[in-house]
Amino acid sequence: MGEIRNVALIGAGVIGAGWAARLVLNGIDVTLHDPDPEAERKAEEVRKNALRAWRKLTLAPLDHLGRITFSRDLEAAVENADLIQESAPERLDLKRDLLARASRACRPDVVIASSTSGLLPSRLQAEMPHPERFVVGHPFNPVYLLPLVEVCGGQQTSEETKQRAADFYRSIGMHPLVLGKEIDGFVADRLLEALWREALHLVNDGIATTDQIDQAIAYGPGLRWSFMGTFLIYRLAGGEAGMRHFMAQFGPTLKLPWSRLEAPELTDGLIETIVAQSDVQAKGRSIRELERLRDDCLVAVLQALRTQDYAAGAVLKAYEEKLYNRGHPLVMAEGDDLGRPLRLHEARVVPEWVDYNGHMSESRYLQVFGDSSDALSRYVGIDADYHAAGMTYYTVETHIMHLREVAAEEPLHVTTQVLGCDAKRLHVFHALYRTRDEARLATAEQMLLHVDRRAGRACPARPDVLARVRRIAEAHAALPKPEHAGRRVGERRS
Amino acid sequence: MGEIRNVALIGAGVIGAGWAARLVLNGIDVTLHDPDPEAERKAEEVRKNALRAWRKLTLAPLDHLGRITFSRDLEAAVENADLIQESAPERLDLKRDLLARASRACRPDVVIASSTSGLLPSRLQAEMPHPERFVVGHPFNPVYLLPLVEVCGGQQTSEETKQRAADFYRSIGMHPLVLGKEIDGFVADRLLEALWREALHLVNDGIATTDQIDQAIAYGPGLRWSFMGTFLIYRLAGGEAGMRHFMAQFGPTLKLPWSRLEAPELTDGLIETIVAQSDVQAKGRSIRELERLRDDCLVAVLQALRTQDYAAGAVLKAYEEKLYNRGHPLVMAEGDDLGRPLRLHEARVVPEWVDYNGHMSESRYLQVFGDSSDALSRYVGIDADYHAAGMTYYTVETHIMHLREVAAEEPLHVTTQVLGCDAKRLHVFHALYRTRDEARLATAEQMLLHVDRRAGRACPARPDVLARVRRIAEAHAALPKPEHAGRRVGERRS
Repeated sequence: MGEIRNVALIGAGVIGAGWAARLVLNGIDVTLHDPDPEAERKAEEVRKNALRAWRKLTLAPLDHLGRITFSRDLEAAVENADLIQESAPERLDLKRDLLARASRACRPDVVIASSTSGLLPSRLQAEMPHPERFVVGHPFNPVYLLPLVEVCGGQQTSEETKQRAADFYRSIGMHPLVLGKEIDGFVADRLLEALWREALHLVNDGIATTDQIDQAIAYGPGLRWSFMGTFLIYRLAGGEAGMRHFMAQFGPTLKLPWSRLEAPELTDGLIETIVAQSDVQAKGRSIRELERLRDDCLVAVLQALRTQDYAAGAVLKAYEEKLYNRGHPLVMAEGDDLGRPLRLHEARVVPEWVDYNGHMSESRYLQVFGDSSDALSRYVGIDADYHAAGMTYYTVETHIMHLREVAAEEPLHVTTQVLGCDAKRLHVFHALYRTRDEARLATAEQMLLHVDRRAGRACPARPDVLARVRRIAEAHAALPKPEHAGRRVGERRS
Repeated sequence: MGEIRNVALIGAGVIGAGWAARLVLNGIDVTLHDPDPEAERKAEEVRKNALRAWRKLTLAPLDHLGRITFSRDLEAAVENADLIQESAPERLDLKRDLLARASRACRPDVVIASSTSGLLPSRLQAEMPHPERFVVGHPFNPVYLLPLVEVCGGQQTSEETKQRAADFYRSIGMHPLVLGKEIDGFVADRLLEALWREALHLVNDGIATTDQIDQAIAYGPGLRWSFMGTFLIYRLAGGEAGMRHFMAQFGPTLKLPWSRLEAPELTDGLIETIVAQSDVQAKGRSIRELERLRDDCLVAVLQALRTQDYAAGAVLKAYEEKLYNRGHPLVMAEGDDLGRPLRLHEARVVPEWVDYNGHMSESRYLQVFGDSSDALSRYVGIDADYHAAGMTYYTVETHIMHLREVAAEEPLHVTTQVLGCDAKRLHVFHALYRTRDEARLATAEQMLLHVDRRAGRACPARPDVLARVRRIAEAHAALPKPEHAGRRVGERRS
């Protein structure tokens, strides 16, 4: 297969526009065909959202962005395409017609894929010339972020076509799931559809609202599903005895009216099949190992959502605030011990702070040190009103020593020593530690300048703030000068 | 309700042991009753897993851990309990018997909750004295991490009991979902069960393996479900037109054989109910706002899973490695002008880089400088294979001067001067400019050390890399020493 540089997209709804966004982010040019006069504007909105999301998602270099062009003419749109992806509404006649037209107008060797959620590929390819190069490539919304794409061929699809489609999807950051048999709804949508239809019954019967139903997923089972499917999850629900025990324990509940859907008969044959396939999935990992993997993923996901203060992340954040509120007052108080460096800031290496080697990236060290200087400024009495008046300490100079790497999820803390001060300047020295073992990870010497942002110049700190700064500086003057303080870059150790 | 200090747990399987772990982490003492002679050992395993997970989950101070004691005698176990939680196997007769016995032996005012996944509370409470204090509190495995607990009363349950149970669950970091009507399987398990039964059919019919079915969830829809349920997700699938459009567009697919479960008739009344309830859920947020919320959560979850190198996180990690490997072909060439500082890196102040004042935050300066050092290392010939061999230049020391603030969206560029080198060390000086007017924003002097990551120590760079570094250093030796190079923090200008 030649390199794919130009993809024709038929249909520019939510799915088609999502494909366009993922493709241009991968440097691929796109030709969009859609009869909707608003399609161009909508696709541009999706592209903007996708670009915004990817800027957060990865620091990896995106060589260049592909271009999107629009074509009112289907045949012209597909003429020079290296691959065609159809994402029209889920109507068999409509899709079949579009696919047949596209297949007559394009080069005979290009893969033609359909984004259908569940129409059978054998039916979709029936009227196409060269039906062997047709395949279903079913993505999920938003296409530019979710990796899954179900790859399913029809009776006339060649193995080579499935392979080419899967390779292409993988090359643009997706996870192709190549299915062996075609069935209405494929695999993912059959599962989604069963859950969705059950949910519609619950609303229809007045049992629960749409919000309650959504909560029933997002605060519990949905968290697990973000990295493990139901079979592996249930293997763990069986405890140490695993899948066979789970099937024995919960087999009888399949007879209970816990869903409107009737389960298949749980024959010995079916149980053996499930247990054997589940054993393959487990790849030799014990239940305890899988539990730890599940827990590590859950912890990471909960922490990720905490940064968004949403759903289960908002629950965790509120709970932690309650735990913290039992704790520390932040402003300097009479009895505080100033006889040693202050310990004012704690942090944790959150997932987005690490590079692909799994270590905290260089710039996050400065972020933690900046947060520590902020904590010091709160400690000396600078509050929101002070900032609102345009007054702040601003970092003008920093010297960092990187001593050791640190992995995701590690708790950190910082100690802060005041090296000196005058009315406008505050000279501090931070040391960053891995809390678990007190290993020193980095140090930062910083010069802060007290500024009036509105006037755009330095000015003395407020007297009460300055008094606290001076009390700390006087107490810390008795401490030894920290190692690395006063260094020039590259200076030999004294 | 008095404070809950001692909880009796009836049943110490996966769920009961999970409750025990969550409770002791909240400083609550637990008495466990279970006939299994292995229960004590198993519960201790779960407690250890939970403690390990919580140490990663939160830095918040956990005042003290509660104690777990075991009791072979049900009546003795519940006698002094402030709350009772039953988690016996899902057999109505068994649970009813245990609950009746417990309710006769405990104080008359304590809440008695059942962890049942789907048995009706009205049936479970039928034989209890004081049935008004019985309620279902249905948690999800692992109980110590997942916040959801469905709270459902029977015909005889008092409102106060539901409220007391919900308050208690909230106090231990959970998210109580209080249901208005009882139904077999409640809400969550009806949804799970529909999906599960559909999955069993797929395996039974030989359509897909357990692993394929799990992948169909975990690499796609499951990622969304970790923070949004199906209704809100589908509101977004409707594009700008929202829920009404989605129901109109996908209504007809409810008639297709995409699941073995038949959907309810999609009457106008049902559509109106869903649209109205979905509007309430959206809380006035536009589709675009909800899309950005969804994308931010997805990005955070994907990054979280990347740290675990698992499921969708492993896909992202592999994809990023490929992007890095493609690298910029910016390797030094014969005709390059080495007579002035190199210009190897450009960037733009993306929105998430700015603080609440609208200026690029402190740590992003270091990020841009770090990227500039990376660009330099590519320029001297360090590529993906070099990194794969464990070799890299690692920043050990940085000195930054912050000269001027910069706003969002400004294009930036960096010039890089090599101040010196030896076989292992590379001493550089970067200057950051606002491209629009060449205003100098900051400078960074950095010392990079060439390291062998596997051996964990410094080592000389590869000869061809070193030769390029030396060529630049020799050419740059003729340049004037930059202002700010060689400074100590706080040093007076010379």
